[in-house]
Amino acid sequence: MTGLPDLAAVEAMDAADPLRAFRDRFVLPEGVVYLDGNSLGAAAPAVFAELTKAATEEWANGLIRSWNTAGWYDLPVKLGDRIGRLIGAAPGQTVVTDTTSINIYKALHAAIAMRPGRSVVVAEGSSFPTDLYMAEGVVQTLAGATLKLEGVDADAIEDLIDESVAVVLINHVNYKSGELRDMAALTKKIHDAGALVVWDLCHSAGALPVALDAAGADFAVGCTYKYLNGGPGSPAFVYAAACHHEAMSQPLSGWFGHARPFAFEPAYAVGHGIRRFLCGTQSVLALRALDGALTIWDDVDMHALRAKSIALTELFIQLVEAKCGRYGVALEGPRDPARRGSQISFIHDHAYEIMQALIERGVIGDFRAPATIRFGFTPLYVGFRDVLKAAEVLEDILRTEAWRAPRFAVRSAVT
Amino acid sequence: MTGLPDLAAVEAMDAADPLRAFRDRFVLPEGVVYLDGNSLGAAAPAVFAELTKAATEEWANGLIRSWNTAGWYDLPVKLGDRIGRLIGAAPGQTVVTDTTSINIYKALHAAIAMRPGRSVVVAEGSSFPTDLYMAEGVVQTLAGATLKLEGVDADAIEDLIDESVAVVLINHVNYKSGELRDMAALTKKIHDAGALVVWDLCHSAGALPVALDAAGADFAVGCTYKYLNGGPGSPAFVYAAACHHEAMSQPLSGWFGHARPFAFEPAYAVGHGIRRFLCGTQSVLALRALDGALTIWDDVDMHALRAKSIALTELFIQLVEAKCGRYGVALEGPRDPARRGSQISFIHDHAYEIMQALIERGVIGDFRAPATIRFGFTPLYVGFRDVLKAAEVLEDILRTEAWRAPRFAVRSAVT
Repeated sequence: MTGLPDLAAVEAMDAADPLRAFRDRFVLPEGVVYLDGNSLGAAAPAVFAELTKAATEEWANGLIRSWNTAGWYDLPVKLGDRIGRLIGAAPGQTVVTDTTSINIYKALHAAIAMRPGRSVVVAEGSSFPTDLYMAEGVVQTLAGATLKLEGVDADAIEDLIDESVAVVLINHVNYKSGELRDMAALTKKIHDAGALVVWDLCHSAGALPVALDAAGADFAVGCTYKYLNGGPGSPAFVYAAACHHEAMSQPLSGWFGHARPFAFEPAYAVGHGIRRFLCGTQSVLALRALDGALTIWDDVDMHALRAKSIALTELFIQLVEAKCGRYGVALEGPRDPARRGSQISFIHDHAYEIMQALIERGVIGDFRAPATIRFGFTPLYVGFRDVLKAAEVLEDILRTEAWRAPRFAVRSAVT
Repeated sequence: MTGLPDLAAVEAMDAADPLRAFRDRFVLPEGVVYLDGNSLGAAAPAVFAELTKAATEEWANGLIRSWNTAGWYDLPVKLGDRIGRLIGAAPGQTVVTDTTSINIYKALHAAIAMRPGRSVVVAEGSSFPTDLYMAEGVVQTLAGATLKLEGVDADAIEDLIDESVAVVLINHVNYKSGELRDMAALTKKIHDAGALVVWDLCHSAGALPVALDAAGADFAVGCTYKYLNGGPGSPAFVYAAACHHEAMSQPLSGWFGHARPFAFEPAYAVGHGIRRFLCGTQSVLALRALDGALTIWDDVDMHALRAKSIALTELFIQLVEAKCGRYGVALEGPRDPARRGSQISFIHDHAYEIMQALIERGVIGDFRAPATIRFGFTPLYVGFRDVLKAAEVLEDILRTEAWRAPRFAVRSAVT
């Protein structure tokens, strides 16, 4: 193993890391190497503080008055703009609301309505499944609409885009393989064919710089509980380019999307700009928790974040291939760091059991069926020392075949 | 004013109140009489405790593992069953998820799909507006579907129900007038016409006993941030009668409604029972806050609650009519307590200014356009002494015309 980075080497990398101070703004359990922040981000004292303030002051003392006095009413647009900076969206184009699934439904409906005469939705067969399920739901409610999936009708999503296609729903980073799409190039191809695009940023928002406006993207959705650390199931966001605001509409036309929600008018009158994507009353506690998490993000340089992300993932691939390659572990997804997000997946026949053994040893990643072990590298709180430890524990589990213990084969409800 | 209950009388009522101990389980600011729990319920230390535990233990220490170990995955159905007891629903028919607006969309779509050949949705013109906006959204996505509103085409909702009607969306208690519908009788009429019903329980869940199963209701929706005290914008619930579970589907077909959400299959396969109404990942912090609030409700006798609610509202009408009737205040909504919920509205030409003056004096109710002052009576934390104080402050504001101060005419963003 000569030439492989050792403890001294990774400690030197940590010492030179310009983002290392962010680690102190999160809490993680003693002894845990947390490589699942791409599924659920870590907690932060700034979040606890905002939650406590929202519950014990704004709610308990301000009561109903806090919709005005504590600014609850504007939280979806204010938080949206702060996320906007991270995803390359100028203010007024992003709101935080509902779930990613529901925002996909809104964005697809809006896009289809803007392309009369076209009725095909294209999506990736390897997409995170809820995207496909929601596209199915949209297609089922619209007479004559159909869904085409990459991997079923063709190999590449570009081959499916023709003059029948109204909208393409596509992941910026694939949830499983980590593959990163070229947003600008693919958006241009989709536009050249006369279609619109909905980008799913669940695995790229907070993982790398995103440039929605610069790419000419039409719509985007994403979640805030992964890299953005808003807490389990924290509300999602949806982006619509300003050029579409006047024309766009969507059927989840609840009162928060109304032009005058507190006039209590019986007929729907579509609201202004990105507020058209709002629907019902949102959990203020959930929004205020995200508010706390975004105070950390307000200080992050996204290019420094990307540089560290690449260094972490490159190191992990190097270490795992050198230490564990002989045990049947194979890289899944792109080797070129320019073509992947901030996560690394490996394939192994006993991926489930191996991940359970890793978790028991304090190295938390996750399993994705049928045979993937997946590791997320969140540059704000994962260091180079963590990467070495994770690779060493994985090597030990494989070398000793510790994963063969029967307890690791027991499936839990959520895997 | 001889014969009107005085301070000694209301103190005696409070002393004899079997629910008075519940007041100690809530926090309210000193000096405030809170009569807006029908808009946003009061906060409780039990909620703060669960929120803190969910954030600083389950999330921060359990991290992703808490989806299993802390039972996060099952929260929507477990909380749904606890609400079920309050609304007369046997277990397995209620889930907590999304917003009332979005749940209306799901329930209307499900109902229409179960009535092929019928394409009319009937709703109340005087409904809380988001119900109508969502019905508009449903109708716009379904070719040939139409929306009929009471108050536009006919006077009574019964007159609109014929063989073209697929579903009737109706409020159990009207948000503004407080009028209580006879759920069993109206459900029967709707069923006799071959249609299905979606009951909106936003202003009756936690306000009075509800008997969905006994009434033969098909679907119901409701919110948890009013009488149920789950916190601002806390997640909503949706009920579907067990007899419909096998046949029902709805287009917001996200991964939490899938039969095997963690198998990551590309095609949607509808889940079991009421889980079909789940869609995306919910805010666990918001669900756990509601969990805390429901620990209080687990101890409540709904019939004792109703008895106190009627006593409170009867007292308020008696006092306001005696003390304030001469100043142009007139009761809006039913005088018969059997025909109203747990709220009282009065009409006045200067309702907005009067409510602002009341709030400044610590009596918090709310204004509903164009001319309603509305007061909610939440029996768990409102007492008879509060009712007397509210009536006395209102009388003073009217007698002295304090509401004429220019500051009370300034409208805030959310009113």
